[in-house]
Amino acid sequence: MKSPLAVVVLAAGAGTRMKSALPKVLHPVAGKPMLAHVLASVARLKPAKVVGVIAPGAKSVAKAFAPYPAAVQKRALGTGDAVKAALPALRGHSGPVLVVYGDSPLITTASLQRLLESCRKAGASVGVLGFVARDPSPYGRLIVNGGTLEKIVESKDANAGERAIDFVNSGVMCLDGARIAGLLGAIGNDNVKREFYLTDVVGIARARGLHAVAVEGPEAEFQGVNSRAELAAAERAMQQRLRSAAMAAGVTMIDPDTVWLSADTKLGNDVTIGPNVRFGPSVTVASGASILAFCDIEGVRIGKGARIGPFTRIRPGSDVGEDVHIGNFVELKATTIKRGAKANHFAYLGDSEIGAASNIGAGTIFVNYDGYGKYRTLLGDDVFIGSNSSLVAPVRIGKGANVTAGSVITEDVPAGALAFGRARQETKKGRAGPLRAKLQARAAAAKRQKGKK
Amino acid sequence: MKSPLAVVVLAAGAGTRMKSALPKVLHPVAGKPMLAHVLASVARLKPAKVVGVIAPGAKSVAKAFAPYPAAVQKRALGTGDAVKAALPALRGHSGPVLVVYGDSPLITTASLQRLLESCRKAGASVGVLGFVARDPSPYGRLIVNGGTLEKIVESKDANAGERAIDFVNSGVMCLDGARIAGLLGAIGNDNVKREFYLTDVVGIARARGLHAVAVEGPEAEFQGVNSRAELAAAERAMQQRLRSAAMAAGVTMIDPDTVWLSADTKLGNDVTIGPNVRFGPSVTVASGASILAFCDIEGVRIGKGARIGPFTRIRPGSDVGEDVHIGNFVELKATTIKRGAKANHFAYLGDSEIGAASNIGAGTIFVNYDGYGKYRTLLGDDVFIGSNSSLVAPVRIGKGANVTAGSVITEDVPAGALAFGRARQETKKGRAGPLRAKLQARAAAAKRQKGKK
Amino acid sequence: MKSPLAVVVLAAGAGTRMKSALPKVLHPVAGKPMLAHVLASVARLKPAKVVGVIAPGAKSVAKAFAPYPAAVQKRALGTGDAVKAALPALRGHSGPVLVVYGDSPLITTASLQRLLESCRKAGASVGVLGFVARDPSPYGRLIVNGGTLEKIVESKDANAGERAIDFVNSGVMCLDGARIAGLLGAIGNDNVKREFYLTDVVGIARARGLHAVAVEGPEAEFQGVNSRAELAAAERAMQQRLRSAAMAAGVTMIDPDTVWLSADTKLGNDVTIGPNVRFGPSVTVASGASILAFCDIEGVRIGKGARIGPFTRIRPGSDVGEDVHIGNFVELKATTIKRGAKANHFAYLGDSEIGAASNIGAGTIFVNYDGYGKYRTLLGDDVFIGSNSSLVAPVRIGKGANVTAGSVITEDVPAGALAFGRARQETKKGRAGPLRAKLQARAAAAKRQKGKK
Repeated sequence: MKSPLAVVVLAAGAGTRMKSALPKVLHPVAGKPMLAHVLASVARLKPAKVVGVIAPGAKSVAKAFAPYPAAVQKRALGTGDAVKAALPALRGHSGPVLVVYGDSPLITTASLQRLLESCRKAGASVGVLGFVARDPSPYGRLIVNGGTLEKIVESKDANAGERAIDFVNSGVMCLDGARIAGLLGAIGNDNVKREFYLTDVVGIARARGLHAVAVEGPEAEFQGVNSRAELAAAERAMQQRLRSAAMAAGVTMIDPDTVWLSADTKLGNDVTIGPNVRFGPSVTVASGASILAFCDIEGVRIGKGARIGPFTRIRPGSDVGEDVHIGNFVELKATTIKRGAKANHFAYLGDSEIGAASNIGAGTIFVNYDGYGKYRTLLGDDVFIGSNSSLVAPVRIGKGANVTAGSVITEDVPAGALAFGRARQETKKGRAGPLRAKLQARAAAAKRQKGKK
Repeated sequence: MKSPLAVVVLAAGAGTRMKSALPKVLHPVAGKPMLAHVLASVARLKPAKVVGVIAPGAKSVAKAFAPYPAAVQKRALGTGDAVKAALPALRGHSGPVLVVYGDSPLITTASLQRLLESCRKAGASVGVLGFVARDPSPYGRLIVNGGTLEKIVESKDANAGERAIDFVNSGVMCLDGARIAGLLGAIGNDNVKREFYLTDVVGIARARGLHAVAVEGPEAEFQGVNSRAELAAAERAMQQRLRSAAMAAGVTMIDPDTVWLSADTKLGNDVTIGPNVRFGPSVTVASGASILAFCDIEGVRIGKGARIGPFTRIRPGSDVGEDVHIGNFVELKATTIKRGAKANHFAYLGDSEIGAASNIGAGTIFVNYDGYGKYRTLLGDDVFIGSNSSLVAPVRIGKGANVTAGSVITEDVPAGALAFGRARQETKKGRAGPLRAKLQARAAAAKRQKGKK
Repeated sequence: MKSPLAVVVLAAGAGTRMKSALPKVLHPVAGKPMLAHVLASVARLKPAKVVGVIAPGAKSVAKAFAPYPAAVQKRALGTGDAVKAALPALRGHSGPVLVVYGDSPLITTASLQRLLESCRKAGASVGVLGFVARDPSPYGRLIVNGGTLEKIVESKDANAGERAIDFVNSGVMCLDGARIAGLLGAIGNDNVKREFYLTDVVGIARARGLHAVAVEGPEAEFQGVNSRAELAAAERAMQQRLRSAAMAAGVTMIDPDTVWLSADTKLGNDVTIGPNVRFGPSVTVASGASILAFCDIEGVRIGKGARIGPFTRIRPGSDVGEDVHIGNFVELKATTIKRGAKANHFAYLGDSEIGAASNIGAGTIFVNYDGYGKYRTLLGDDVFIGSNSSLVAPVRIGKGANVTAGSVITEDVPAGALAFGRARQETKKGRAGPLRAKLQARAAAAKRQKGKK
C-alpha cells in the first residue's frame, strides 16, 4: 500500500437505542457532533478522499459530511455491505483505504497513523486496529500468529483457547485500495442475520495468501456510542482527555470532574478554574486569569489577569480585557469590556462596548431590544454607571461621565456630563402604620374571598 | 403460603450514628423519606396489610406510615423482637408475611415479588433474600444445601468453610403467616447482646422439618443506612438508577453524575440536560425540551421544545408552555407562561400568568408581596415589558400592550395601551467632574474619620 | 532520641511540571497553600524548632514559612543535600529531627506522632514512614528484617525478590538530632544524577550499628504534588477527608462529591447541604441550617435554622441570624442580617445591617459604592423594602418603615415612615400600536443600513 489515502466513514447505523429524532452520529460530544470529531481526526491525516456512508434519506448526516461526498447504503446488510456502498466513490483509488466509524468519536489521528504505518511497513493488504479489552467477551478475538493476523473470530464462534484471548477487534481497518473491491466481493452472508461482515476480509485475504496485521491501540479510543448511557460515557472520556491536556499545560482545576470543556477551548498557563465551570465553543483564556465557580462561558476571549465569576454567564461575541472583573449574576452578550473595567454584580450587558476602567453598578441593564430591533450601548473610558440604571440603546455615554443610581437613560450623555432620570424621594412621617393596616385588611379580605369560593 | 400478603416494615432503629434530631427512616433520598421509598416498593405488591414497627414516641414515623398502622417495639431487643411487636396487628392473617426495612430504600418490588414467588412454589415456610457480597465479612452466611436454606451463620460464628461463602443474608424475609407466631416465639436471646435475632427462624423452621429457601437479589438493593455517609451512598445509588432509566428512555445528560432527579421526575425523549441540574419533586419535561446547565427546578410542567437555563430557578405551581425560553437568573414561582413567550434574563416572575409570545425584559420584577398578602400579575398575549420594570400586583396588562423600560406599574394597562412610569432624563454638562471631586473628598474624609477611631 | 523535636520541611523543589509562576508549595489545596497544611500538621506536634528549606530567591516561600526560618539550598543536589542546608539552623539540637515535604499536604499529625513514638521506643537513630503501595514500582522498597529496617532499595536497583516487596518509602523520616550531621555527611553522590539521596542514611546508620525502623502509614497521606493533575488529586483526597469528617458529625450532603469545603469550615449537626456548594474560608454553620444547591459562601457565620440558596453568594464579613432566609440570586457582602429577616430573591446587600424580621424585596440594591468610597446601609427591625428599590448609602431606614417598590432612596427614612421615590404611572390608550410600528420601522431601517455596509 502507498499514498494517497482514502477514508471511508461509516455512519449509516440506525441508532435505535438512542430513541432520538436526531441521527446518532450527530449527537454532540464536547459541544460538537460525534461525526465531526471523527472527521477532524481523519482530516489530520490529509487524505486524498473521504467518503461517508449514510442511511437512505439521512440528509442531515450527508450535510455533516460536506464537502465530502456521502454514499447511501440502501439496506442495512452489515459493515461489509456498508463499505461496498463507498466503492463507486473510490474508483481509481489504489492507495490504502481506512475504514472508521462515525459513532466512535474518541479515535485519534495517532492511532490511525500507526495503523497506516504498520500496514505500509509490513506490506499488508489488511490491517486491523485492536485493543486489549478489560472484558473481551463482547468482541471478536484477533488471532495473531508470528506477527500475522490470521483471522477474527466472533465471540460466539470462539473455542475455549480463543475465548481466553483478550486482544480484540476495534472495527477500524486499513485495506489495500487495489484489492478492496475483490476482498469485499468475497464476503458472504451465510450467517443468522444474513449480513455481510467486514471482519471476514481478514480470513479472505489470508486465504488468498495476502498479508494481514493487527496493531494495538488504547481501548478508550474505540468506545462506540449506541445509547445515551454510552454517549455520556464518551462525553466523559473526551472531557477527561481535554482536562488532562489542560492541566499538563499548567491550568489549575480545583475539581477537574466538574469542568466541562469544548474541543476548541484554549486556556493559558496559571489559569485557575473553580468547580463547576462550563466552557461552550470558542473560548480563549489568557494566562493568569481566574474563572471562579459556577460559570457558563461561550464565545469569548478573556484577557490576562481577568477575574470572572462566580455565577457569570458569557455569551458569544464577547471580549473581556486584561484585569477586568465580571462578578456574580452578570450576563455578557456580544460585549467588549476593556482593561480594568468592572461589572461586579447583577448586570445584563448586551450588544455593548465598555471603556477601560469603567464601573458598572449592580442591577444595571443595557436595554438592547425593543421587541423588533437590537441596538448598541457604547460607553467611553472611565464611565461610572450607578446601580439599578437602565440604559436604553442605542445610546452613548461619553468618557468620564456619571449616571446616577436608579436612572433610565434614553439620550446620549456627553463626556464629563452627569445624567440622571429618577424621581425625587418623598418621605411621609408616620405613614407606614396606616399603609400596613390597609395592606393587612386587603390581605384578610382576599383570604375571605378565597374561602368563599 | 398463599395470598393475601402482609408486610412488616421495621423502622424502630435508633439511628444513633446519624447524629440527628430527625428519625433515621425519615431522612430523604431522591427528595422523599427513605421509608416512603420502601412503602412505595411494598405498595406495588398490593398487600392486604402493612404494619410499621416503630420506637416508643416516634410520632413522626407513625405519621409517615399512615394510613398503615404502626406497632411500637417497647425496647430495642433485636429484629426478632421487633417483628413480634407487629403480631397483634397481623392476627388472623394466614398468608405470607414479608419483613422489610425502613432504612433500606433501594429494595425493589421485583426482588420482593421474586422472593414471594419462590416461597410459594417451594412451599417454604421461611424465605430469605440473599446477595453475593463483594465483601461478605460483615454479613451472616446463607448455608444452602440442595435448594434448601439450612441456616444463617453469623460471621463471628462461622467456621473456615462457612466464611468462604459469599452468599449472604440481606435481612429481608418471607414467613408463613400461619406459623410466624410459633417461629418467632422459639427465638432465644442466649447471646452476648441478649437480643432476639430474626435470622434464627431459619434454623428453627428447619429443626421443625419446615422448608426454607434463599433467593438471590442484587447487592445494591440491600444497602442499609446507618450514617450520613451511607445516606449519601444510598442517594448516589438511587440517582444512578433514576439516571439510567432516563437515559434508556432517550434523554441526553451531558454529565449524568451531576443531574439530580426526584423519584417522580418525568422526562420525554430527546430532552437534553446540561451539567448540574437539580430536579425537585413534581417535574415533567416534554420531548425535545432543553434544560441547560445550572438549573434548580421543582413543581413544573415544561412543554415541548422549551429552553430553560442556564441559571434558572423554577418553583412549584408553574407551567411552561411549548417553545418558551426562560434564561439566566430568572425565577418562576406559581407562574404559567404560554407558548413562545420569553423571559431571557434576570426576572422574578411570581404568582402570574404570561400570555403567548409575550416578552419580559431583563430586570423585570413582578411585585407579588406587600408584606401581608400575595397578589397576581396577569399578562395577555403579545405583551412587551421593558427592562427593569416593576409590576405591582394585583395588576393586569392587556393583550398587545407595551410597558416602557424602568417603569413602576401600579394600575392595569388596557390592551394595546402604552404605559410608563419613570422620570425624564436630565443631563448636566460638565457636572461629572465636580461631583466626582465631591465624592472623592467625602471618601477621604470618611477614611480620616476611620483612622481617628 | 528524646524531646524536644525539630522539623525540617523541604520546599526547594523546582516544580517545573506545574508550569507555573507560583512556587509549587504555595499552590492551594482546600483553600490554603499546600505548605500551610504541612505546617499545621507539624505545629500540632509542638516542635521546638521548625526549619524550612527553600530554593534561592524563593521569597514568597520564605514568607510562607514565617515566623519559622528558612534555609536556602543553593543547588538542587538532592534530598540529602537539602536537609544538610538546614543543619546550621539545627545547631545545638539533640532531640529527634523530622523531615517532611512541603508538597505533600495530606500528611497527618497522627502519622508523624506514630513515627516519633516508634523511634523513641525502639531507640532508633533513623525512622522511616512507609506505606503499602497499590503499585510499588515507582518507589524505594523498605527492606525490613525482624523489626529492623535494613536499607531502602531504589526500584531500579532492586532484585526480583526486592521488587516483590510492596512496603515502600514515603520519604518522611525521623533522625536522631545528635547524629544527623554525621549521617548526612556520609551520604555520597556516586550515582547517575550526582545527587545526595536522603534514603542512603538508613544503610549508613545500619553499617554503623545504629538501629533503624520503618512505620506504616496510609498511602493516601503521602501523595506528593508535582503536576496540576496531582494537585487536583490531592485536592480531591483532602476534600474527601473533610467531607467524611463532616458527615460523621451529622451533616447531610446530598452529593458529597459536589461539596467543596475549606480546611476551616465548621458545620453543626443536622445541617443539610445540597449539591454544588462551595465553602470558601471562614464559614460556620449552626445546627439545622440548610444550604441549598448552587451556593458560594465565604467568611460568614450562619445561624440555626437559616435557609440559604439556591444560587446564593455570600462574601466575607457577613453574619446571618437564626431562621433568616436568603434566596436565589442574592449576594451578601459584609452584611449582618438578623433573626427571621428575609431576602428571598435578586438582591445586592453590601456593607449593611438588616434588622430582625425585615423583608427585602426582589431586585433591591444597596448602593454602597460611588466610585470612590464605600458606605453603609442600616435598616432597623421590621423594615419592608419594596422590590426593585435602590438604597443609596450612607442611609438609614428606621424601624417599621416602608419603602415602596421601584424607589430610589437617598435620604434617611425615620422609624414608621413611608418613603417613595418613583414617577407616577401614565397610560396612553391605543398608543402601543403606533409605537410598535415606529420601532419596527427603525429596526427595518437599521437592517437596510447594515446591508449597505
